[in-house]
Amino acid sequence: MTESSALLTDQYELTMVQAALLSGAAHRRCVFEVFARKLPAGRRYGVVAGTGRLLEGLQRFRFGTSELDFLSSTGVFDDETLHYLSGYRFSGTVLGYAEGETYFPHSPVLRFEATFAEACVLETYVLSVMNHDSAIASAASRMTVAADGRPCVDMGSRRTQEHSAVAAARAAAVAGFTATSNLEAGRQFGLDTLGTAAHAFTLLHDSEEEAFRAQVEAFGPGTTLLVDTFDVETAVRRAVEIAGPELGAVRLDSGDLVEQAHWVRRLLDSLGNTSTRIIVSSDLDEYAIARLASAPVDSYGVGTRLVTGSGAPTASMVYKLVERDDDAGTPVPVEKASAGKTGRAGVKHPVRTFDEHGIAEAEVLGVGGEPNTEGSSARSLHVPLIVDGELRPGHTGSEAVRTARERHAESLAELPAQAHRLSDGDPVIPTIFS
Amino acid sequence: MTESSALLTDQYELTMVQAALLSGAAHRRCVFEVFARKLPAGRRYGVVAGTGRLLEGLQRFRFGTSELDFLSSTGVFDDETLHYLSGYRFSGTVLGYAEGETYFPHSPVLRFEATFAEACVLETYVLSVMNHDSAIASAASRMTVAADGRPCVDMGSRRTQEHSAVAAARAAAVAGFTATSNLEAGRQFGLDTLGTAAHAFTLLHDSEEEAFRAQVEAFGPGTTLLVDTFDVETAVRRAVEIAGPELGAVRLDSGDLVEQAHWVRRLLDSLGNTSTRIIVSSDLDEYAIARLASAPVDSYGVGTRLVTGSGAPTASMVYKLVERDDDAGTPVPVEKASAGKTGRAGVKHPVRTFDEHGIAEAEVLGVGGEPNTEGSSARSLHVPLIVDGELRPGHTGSEAVRTARERHAESLAELPAQAHRLSDGDPVIPTIFS
Repeated sequence: MTESSALLTDQYELTMVQAALLSGAAHRRCVFEVFARKLPAGRRYGVVAGTGRLLEGLQRFRFGTSELDFLSSTGVFDDETLHYLSGYRFSGTVLGYAEGETYFPHSPVLRFEATFAEACVLETYVLSVMNHDSAIASAASRMTVAADGRPCVDMGSRRTQEHSAVAAARAAAVAGFTATSNLEAGRQFGLDTLGTAAHAFTLLHDSEEEAFRAQVEAFGPGTTLLVDTFDVETAVRRAVEIAGPELGAVRLDSGDLVEQAHWVRRLLDSLGNTSTRIIVSSDLDEYAIARLASAPVDSYGVGTRLVTGSGAPTASMVYKLVERDDDAGTPVPVEKASAGKTGRAGVKHPVRTFDEHGIAEAEVLGVGGEPNTEGSSARSLHVPLIVDGELRPGHTGSEAVRTARERHAESLAELPAQAHRLSDGDPVIPTIFS
Repeated sequence: MTESSALLTDQYELTMVQAALLSGAAHRRCVFEVFARKLPAGRRYGVVAGTGRLLEGLQRFRFGTSELDFLSSTGVFDDETLHYLSGYRFSGTVLGYAEGETYFPHSPVLRFEATFAEACVLETYVLSVMNHDSAIASAASRMTVAADGRPCVDMGSRRTQEHSAVAAARAAAVAGFTATSNLEAGRQFGLDTLGTAAHAFTLLHDSEEEAFRAQVEAFGPGTTLLVDTFDVETAVRRAVEIAGPELGAVRLDSGDLVEQAHWVRRLLDSLGNTSTRIIVSSDLDEYAIARLASAPVDSYGVGTRLVTGSGAPTASMVYKLVERDDDAGTPVPVEKASAGKTGRAGVKHPVRTFDEHGIAEAEVLGVGGEPNTEGSSARSLHVPLIVDGELRPGHTGSEAVRTARERHAESLAELPAQAHRLSDGDPVIPTIFS
């Protein structure tokens, strides 16, 4: 993808730059923070995801001839603005929560320090990436928690926009999903891809037997056979007959999965196929996965509810100006003061504090400086992502996904045990401004 | 966008092709249908959208060197399959509901006729595009209905994935939205774009007055000033003082919009600004828009709830094999027969019937042939989109969005009046298999 990402934005980001170039305020040094005022209803924690994708996309945030020609054609933008945009390159600094880290209401998951013009034009793009990916990762984390070690596989591509599908696969991987059905996600992010056959493959053939034989011939006995196109019991017996004791797995994609998993397991075992796995994949979400905990299921294929954030398809993060210089170069904290949606002026310094057992106690946000966490064990949450326009290593590419997945597991393990409960609850640690 | 769309798909589409090439069934002529088994809970109709985007994307559905190299690297695919994919080009026929048309449970919104291999590989991509865009258009249509002629503007880009944002803007336009904040959607689909300033622009300046002056200087008095950063009344008076009687609009983005709209209108009128419009944009959905019907509001900016489908972020359409040839070339209707998710075998011929006043009565699906609609006025719902691999004119590009918007308005006008009710209900016309 070498395409420019610069028009994936709202027009007002650029009209604001135009007016600010005119007023002279465009070059004031500003600090913008990305945060969610609250978690989706009932959620106990959120998961930061999309950081790597964002940092990759920002490298392509350039206004080339095609973008400038379009902007010019709208008749909205003057020559000074177009000239400014033609040389646009983010030269500021970005700090943020490391990808995979958990977050809470008001956690400043990203901080942008740059001139107004440089930071302003990024708002929409930053939020699009972070709101989507964090929403998916936050839902995915509840699913992997519910799965309690059994592998979860993303199979949701068809239930979301085609490029969202790729991003969702990546976000799910951050939250512990082990593979995806999406090939582009495999190519772009080095994720493991999976998939064998749908009902159409069975229906295409003159009989289920012919279909199973074709699949086993193509992929060997270790393949996964879909056994619910006609009668499940007949199909399982047929699958074992054709693939033998090496049959990799059977997949159940409809009906009462708990009940079926039990008797299919017994049937497989009675036929000697004790190592043939059972994969289930019908309308699963974290609750359905939890209900299957006692059933002899080996892995979960999750679709619709993963890619739609299991009821919370956006993380509702905002990108707010919290400080800007005055004409003398002195930083001035700022906030919206009208009814509703109030902000909190000043730059936040986020720290997570821990009790003597290493369990997280609070999200402490120092306003205007480092918070005083004397007497507590504490971990600073901001890491440098871009410094003076230079991308810091380790936050992009396939490697970053693996690192983020490990970080997520560690961050989750530090939270109080009730973080693992699926029932509606409050954020498991309080956010304290200090 | 000249990038290949061919990996925006699930791996199993390609493994099925591989196994079918081996069994010889890959070249059997097949018919796949795209339909939703049901509408989202409470919805009275759905809106077909994405068709134009899909047809454009299918022109880029090619396996080039980069795609083939990746597939080869997975170790899953054999040479015969890679060779088949290297020459892949859809040469079949696609019929479908014209974009913008309303649909109901089981409406066959698209029909693909091709060999198994040619049609199978498209499944995921087709569903990703149609499920997303139709979900957004279906929500957007309820919003434009609630707005009852007042303009609705898409401002949701930041609350969905960056490419979904572009698609959502287009889908909203199909359902009657008049403009979008998204610049890429303006470029790609010729949509009108809008946007002036956010709270950050006011906070950037030393005073609201300076910010307003800068904006009016940059864009003239006809601009839209955001008046809720500090005190709304002060801001409205200041806006009028600075921009004069020509002030285009004020925007309210927080608080009780109904109450504010009333007194802001009176205030504007008392200051002589009777033609200054009021734009509202805070957490709107179809219900909030309906509540604002009696308030003096001139247009609606809709964000989160638009791009997340107002509670239904996917249209849940499926892509099902309903007929395939046997070895003798005789078409055989097929369907899944196991518990749940049952299909209905055979090719459907969709017709909408009307009463003597031209109001839709039923969605009649002739199974295996044209339905008998004698005695009713009726309209056939399938139009040719691709014939023997050739794209039919008129279904892609900017022009297609305008055509689809008109068609949507016409299709909606034909539905029984209760289609316009926002309360939960059943589909407004029954689906009848005939």
